Amino acid sequence: MPKLWGGRFAGETDELVARYNASLPFDVRLVDEDIDGSIAWARALVGAGVLDASEAARLVEGLEAVRAEFDAGQFAAAPGDEDIHTAVERRLTELVGPLGGRLHTGRSRNDQVATDFRLWVMRACDALLGEVAALQRALLASAEAHLHLPMPGYTHLQQAQPVTWGHWALSHFWPLERDRGRLRQARAAASVLPLGSGALAGSGFPVDRAALAAALGFDRVAPNSIDAVADRDFAADFLYACAMTGIHLARLSEQLILFSSAEFGFVALPDAYSTGSSLMPQKKNPDTLELTRGKAGRLLGHLTGLLATLKGLPSAYDKDLQEDKEPVFDAADTLTLALPVMAGLIGALEVRPERMRAALAQAGGGLFATDVADYLVERGVPFREAHALVGRAVRRAEALGVGLDALPPAEWQAIHPLLGGDLSALFDVRAALGRRRAEGGTAPEALARQVARAKEQLAVS
Amino acid sequence: MPKLWGGRFAGETDELVARYNASLPFDVRLVDEDIDGSIAWARALVGAGVLDASEAARLVEGLEAVRAEFDAGQFAAAPGDEDIHTAVERRLTELVGPLGGRLHTGRSRNDQVATDFRLWVMRACDALLGEVAALQRALLASAEAHLHLPMPGYTHLQQAQPVTWGHWALSHFWPLERDRGRLRQARAAASVLPLGSGALAGSGFPVDRAALAAALGFDRVAPNSIDAVADRDFAADFLYACAMTGIHLARLSEQLILFSSAEFGFVALPDAYSTGSSLMPQKKNPDTLELTRGKAGRLLGHLTGLLATLKGLPSAYDKDLQEDKEPVFDAADTLTLALPVMAGLIGALEVRPERMRAALAQAGGGLFATDVADYLVERGVPFREAHALVGRAVRRAEALGVGLDALPPAEWQAIHPLLGGDLSALFDVRAALGRRRAEGGTAPEALARQVARAKEQLAVS
Amino acid sequence: MPKLWGGRFAGETDELVARYNASLPFDVRLVDEDIDGSIAWARALVGAGVLDASEAARLVEGLEAVRAEFDAGQFAAAPGDEDIHTAVERRLTELVGPLGGRLHTGRSRNDQVATDFRLWVMRACDALLGEVAALQRALLASAEAHLHLPMPGYTHLQQAQPVTWGHWALSHFWPLERDRGRLRQARAAASVLPLGSGALAGSGFPVDRAALAAALGFDRVAPNSIDAVADRDFAADFLYACAMTGIHLARLSEQLILFSSAEFGFVALPDAYSTGSSLMPQKKNPDTLELTRGKAGRLLGHLTGLLATLKGLPSAYDKDLQEDKEPVFDAADTLTLALPVMAGLIGALEVRPERMRAALAQAGGGLFATDVADYLVERGVPFREAHALVGRAVRRAEALGVGLDALPPAEWQAIHPLLGGDLSALFDVRAALGRRRAEGGTAPEALARQVARAKEQLAVS
Amino acid sequence: MPKLWGGRFAGETDELVARYNASLPFDVRLVDEDIDGSIAWARALVGAGVLDASEAARLVEGLEAVRAEFDAGQFAAAPGDEDIHTAVERRLTELVGPLGGRLHTGRSRNDQVATDFRLWVMRACDALLGEVAALQRALLASAEAHLHLPMPGYTHLQQAQPVTWGHWALSHFWPLERDRGRLRQARAAASVLPLGSGALAGSGFPVDRAALAAALGFDRVAPNSIDAVADRDFAADFLYACAMTGIHLARLSEQLILFSSAEFGFVALPDAYSTGSSLMPQKKNPDTLELTRGKAGRLLGHLTGLLATLKGLPSAYDKDLQEDKEPVFDAADTLTLALPVMAGLIGALEVRPERMRAALAQAGGGLFATDVADYLVERGVPFREAHALVGRAVRRAEALGVGLDALPPAEWQAIHPLLGGDLSALFDVRAALGRRRAEGGTAPEALARQVARAKEQLAVS
Repeated sequence: MPKLWGGRFAGETDELVARYNASLPFDVRLVDEDIDGSIAWARALVGAGVLDASEAARLVEGLEAVRAEFDAGQFAAAPGDEDIHTAVERRLTELVGPLGGRLHTGRSRNDQVATDFRLWVMRACDALLGEVAALQRALLASAEAHLHLPMPGYTHLQQAQPVTWGHWALSHFWPLERDRGRLRQARAAASVLPLGSGALAGSGFPVDRAALAAALGFDRVAPNSIDAVADRDFAADFLYACAMTGIHLARLSEQLILFSSAEFGFVALPDAYSTGSSLMPQKKNPDTLELTRGKAGRLLGHLTGLLATLKGLPSAYDKDLQEDKEPVFDAADTLTLALPVMAGLIGALEVRPERMRAALAQAGGGLFATDVADYLVERGVPFREAHALVGRAVRRAEALGVGLDALPPAEWQAIHPLLGGDLSALFDVRAALGRRRAEGGTAPEALARQVARAKEQLAVS
Repeated sequence: MPKLWGGRFAGETDELVARYNASLPFDVRLVDEDIDGSIAWARALVGAGVLDASEAARLVEGLEAVRAEFDAGQFAAAPGDEDIHTAVERRLTELVGPLGGRLHTGRSRNDQVATDFRLWVMRACDALLGEVAALQRALLASAEAHLHLPMPGYTHLQQAQPVTWGHWALSHFWPLERDRGRLRQARAAASVLPLGSGALAGSGFPVDRAALAAALGFDRVAPNSIDAVADRDFAADFLYACAMTGIHLARLSEQLILFSSAEFGFVALPDAYSTGSSLMPQKKNPDTLELTRGKAGRLLGHLTGLLATLKGLPSAYDKDLQEDKEPVFDAADTLTLALPVMAGLIGALEVRPERMRAALAQAGGGLFATDVADYLVERGVPFREAHALVGRAVRRAEALGVGLDALPPAEWQAIHPLLGGDLSALFDVRAALGRRRAEGGTAPEALARQVARAKEQLAVS
Repeated sequence: MPKLWGGRFAGETDELVARYNASLPFDVRLVDEDIDGSIAWARALVGAGVLDASEAARLVEGLEAVRAEFDAGQFAAAPGDEDIHTAVERRLTELVGPLGGRLHTGRSRNDQVATDFRLWVMRACDALLGEVAALQRALLASAEAHLHLPMPGYTHLQQAQPVTWGHWALSHFWPLERDRGRLRQARAAASVLPLGSGALAGSGFPVDRAALAAALGFDRVAPNSIDAVADRDFAADFLYACAMTGIHLARLSEQLILFSSAEFGFVALPDAYSTGSSLMPQKKNPDTLELTRGKAGRLLGHLTGLLATLKGLPSAYDKDLQEDKEPVFDAADTLTLALPVMAGLIGALEVRPERMRAALAQAGGGLFATDVADYLVERGVPFREAHALVGRAVRRAEALGVGLDALPPAEWQAIHPLLGGDLSALFDVRAALGRRRAEGGTAPEALARQVARAKEQLAVS
Repeated sequence: MPKLWGGRFAGETDELVARYNASLPFDVRLVDEDIDGSIAWARALVGAGVLDASEAARLVEGLEAVRAEFDAGQFAAAPGDEDIHTAVERRLTELVGPLGGRLHTGRSRNDQVATDFRLWVMRACDALLGEVAALQRALLASAEAHLHLPMPGYTHLQQAQPVTWGHWALSHFWPLERDRGRLRQARAAASVLPLGSGALAGSGFPVDRAALAAALGFDRVAPNSIDAVADRDFAADFLYACAMTGIHLARLSEQLILFSSAEFGFVALPDAYSTGSSLMPQKKNPDTLELTRGKAGRLLGHLTGLLATLKGLPSAYDKDLQEDKEPVFDAADTLTLALPVMAGLIGALEVRPERMRAALAQAGGGLFATDVADYLVERGVPFREAHALVGRAVRRAEALGVGLDALPPAEWQAIHPLLGGDLSALFDVRAALGRRRAEGGTAPEALARQVARAKEQLAVS
């Protein structure tokens, strides 16, 4: 079978070049979108007076037959099938005869491939939005299960102040909420119809592009035919959304890797989410989490790669743009697997309150130092002075080899008379948590409000 | 002056370490945002019962005095000023006395710096939105000035079909419109208030965060205190918006570099936008455009760098986050200069219709090959067959050494009887442009509609 | 079949997690290296007293049988085959019985996988070194075929001074020579043996690592067992070498895309290296070159991705490192195809001297402006003054609408008395080329020297 | 003062454009290299017959006077000083009169700037090589101070097998040794002289480039003048070397951050290398290490950015290349500060043997599981079976709530008769360390060999 564009060529394509140019091995994933787009196009050609209704119907029937072959795994690629668009048209023509040669009227692969790819990205966004929400639900469930369970909170990986497991788990809910926002934006960016833009100058036939957009589920029509075939912003937006999601999963993973170490021990991974060592019989490794952390690099690489490919391209459509699909497919595949794996892991995680309690106890009151300073502030000491005084108490306790909560009253008294009384209430974890009542804090009422907000967000989508 | 946090430390900071940690050399740019944030915080502390109104008033007065020193270039940094937040508080305390030590009550640098930086990004977005719109207006003006001027359109950098200068110029309007969308999203992402989140666990004092948000112009309050101090998505969103804008400017630049070469010659750069060679006296170089193209790499580098920094961070706030500011500042500075330079250049560009006409004439009708195929389609030939027939005509014309538009009638006739007549109308550029009437095409009515849509978009912001 | 590490696990691996962890789909490419490594290890275990010679011989025989199954496409993966190492050992044990269970003695997958992967990279470097050299030979052949053919040289894409095709073609030879240097360095980086490092602490059995290195073709033994299992610098070095090669191919492609445009027309691509348009019958597109240019982005993405994955990893071996292989495989595959495609294209390129001559003629002497300035310098005028004088001549010629080479003698005389004579020799392209005799210049003797140096370099490898 | 290239220009440069193009704000750092290069060039012009010896001497004197002004901070930039090259030549001409206008004979800024920048990179490599070695020495000193101190070794951040502090510290020595290799390669890549290549076609005057190279300390002469002005591989090589160094510092930092957490506690950071919290009086944060970890992102961003800028550049010299300097300067500055800070920190680090001992004790023998398996292997049990048996013991110990080292003999006996005896020697940390005698392992003799190798490497440079 000759190339669809072979008329003006005397020589054959070099075999290695043909392999280099071929995109069928990967753009075969666009088969459904390609057939959907061609069906809509066949119908639009009726409106444009190019086909009559029965011709369009025969084309649609033929296209559905091609789809059925694909679905059944019976499609046989032919040597000239350089991409999915060519393959589908070739097979269609075999099935419906010369009528198949009318389908590409007024259309170019430039607007066709952009349309197919956008449809694919729109559907990928929908799927990923669901998977992100599922992980959010898992985090929310874990948060509610241990909403008020105290644990050390960290900054700089140093124990800082008490928080709760629920608060911590929700701190990973909100980044994902932002990721959903980015995925929605990527979807909206994709939902602009290029079809009807021809190769770059617009279609030579008066198709109704608004009707095409409606038929295919696009929100809008691309306003400029040159831009329509050149624009890959939606793919970049998608890769950016995926990269950011990957980074958030990596931060969550990093923390859970730490928490599941022997030294922290705040969580235990179930066997189903761990693997062993080929050499060391005792090992139980958080491979799942490490892979997820590592894949953030892969996703960032895809984003960087596409942006570098796009940078400085000269004309409406350049073949460089064929490099847009593999990173997008791989990014979608990566998250399509990583998100449910992480959701399952969160659901199966064993939370270990006793280890958190032990860590808080061993901290010897250091996590309540701010509360002591605040206590002074409430009694009129300027905060900056209070901070210095408590800092001195910390040094004194270190020198004495005791926890801050075990510093003798006389020592406190020596530091400041206001500290001479019974300070034990300041070292109570429930009290410390309860003091942070402002929105977003650790107090029960603030946590309740946060859970309610989270549920509202999940209900939105 | 001792460090604000020095109470618990026995030893001094190593001098090199102090220099390594210091962010004042760059975060001094946050001075206005820091003072705005502190003023709002002082007022919020009245509501929380920490300060009385007159104390707050004296703090506000002191903060405005510090601002005035900065504005007048009279601020003198002191050795302990490790960042802008420390420097402002230190100077405030010198001015108002111990009262200054009350300002930081219930606040941490973690929520303070996030608040300041978000404010800065919000303002940078506003400024860049204006600069992008100015470049869009320049492109629109150029488009309207030569809306129907025919020029060759390119795909794969090969002449493809005629377009118009107006259509081409507008093809660079729309990517910028999408960039404005991304900048608006980055602004919305920034417009979430962290203040009141403390170090990570929430503020120990019952400040009214909604009122704080309103006072500072934030849309919303961060819902989780841990996330509030850890979240740098807004900075990534901003860098992504900048990188994409940079890529669009690079594509525009690449095309204008080509168009201003001797070989294309479609435009001439005014002297004011060109530079010469130190060696070759005849040279007039498009340095401005090349710099703009090159800076897309820089902007991509900033995005990649920040994302790599964020990936895998373990806890609420880690000092790695201090690396967020320099790329954001540099990206904003880069575009703040590049955008008006490009807008000025577009406005000053000399468009050369005679060179475009010459290029179209030299093309010998090749750009109308699709129109010939469409002519056959309208007379009932399936497009795929028509494409092959015209391809054959192209080869025949090449063999004869003539343009497609000079192929003798007998040759056309031999290829297909329907081509036996007078085809000259098919090789008329106005007619070819006019045939592409569907939305987004080159026909006058489509261009008019596109211009109208562009104006609507500009009116929106 | 149970997991090789399953002894301490009570629960089963979640099915999705198993799929997430599985690397067999891609690390199956390491099968030869894995078997080579295991054969060497079996022999080393004899030296360590773990096996006797006949046991080792049976293991080697079994491993070769496994290899034969792979080579014949008859290997059947089993459910527990999570990676190629597991798959090979599992099958080996099926073939040789419990003896197979002795092979992994004193070895960990950590040192095993690093060994296999390094071997693969060493072999990939060897293959790519050959492919780069082949492209260099094609460029050299093209250079020699048109060594002294004059063409315009460009800076800033503006015509600058005459060069020759040979000089231009060689300007793309030398970057590839540097790429070979980087590939050799990546190979040397890979050629450090991890085997014998165990999981991280060294092997529990006294294997002779120097002998192992010699048997497997490694240059050196890794000096620290923790670093040996953690180090992926060689993979990064390889990706960096690939990314730089990709950038050089992209620069070459960009220029050939320009040169094959209608406007430049310096080269024509043979049909075998071009493709057509599905819509526009006249199009002949340099897709091959555009793809090559685009793939530089992909290669950069892989480099960035791996570096981001490596950044900040905490311990000797983390599972994140499993993300190292796919980018390396894809980078090697990309260049393994791109390099011979480009070599073939260079060999098949039609160089068009008449278009270069025409471009030089149309330039109207502008490319010789530096020669006029140099003429003044040779007669005692300071260069800076000479530059300004010729610049004035350029303006004057522009004002008169003539080329610099057609500026009337009286005009030259008015600019400087020394310019009053016959300047025609200054506008002779051969003379201008011949004047640049210093090493690396365009004069025949300099070009001859350059060709000789290029041949020396090719002979080295 | 007019532009050096202003002769052919009628209009003035737009003020914003002038600011956009100006590189003096950053390339002023090349002042020494520019003056060195110009001095060598002045001397070469004598050889080429352009200047006589006394003219060259006056130029050299003038150039040294300019340098002295810079060194004294007395250089006054003039409005036309668009870059350091222009500024120096302008000032030189003010000082020596019209003779200054002879200096640029036969030279272009294209070869001049490439020469200056390469010199700068060569010197930066030399400086960084010294700083990396200093950090290596600090690691080596720490290793020797605690060469045999046992500590838990980790894979997947799970306790794996015992190692020693010395072994661990040396595991960070070797990556830096590879970094020195990359810096040396970057230096060699830079050490190729472009001077004498003119704008792109070679110098119009017969300068002796080999002598120039020798005078300036370059190893070789660039073989092709077009490539000489286009090549920025050396800058990319430098940024790659810096990025990899950054990644290694980040891995070291990550581990020390973990080790200095309350949960691990293996090291304590001295006050001089820690900072406090503005809010929480008890905090002592490893900011230095976090900054170092974060800066790996910045360095990766610079590499990515430059590579994206280089990708697809069309001609010999394009102004995009001006974007090469800022990332290189910033990368050098970053490491010039980070490396000595890290070296100082390593030197000042408090190692805490008691916490390592405690961690090993708490592990309950799990880290010796491999040793038990190896014990069985030595008695004839196939390793794979031994692994499974010990895995079962691990589960049994977990079920009984005891450490593996406290599993009763009867339990061991039930798992395998060979385990019925006294296993206590297997749980001895010294014995376990001593068993790993192969090169690169933890045994005293292996560590001694490793230290010796490290010292040899340091002696090399």
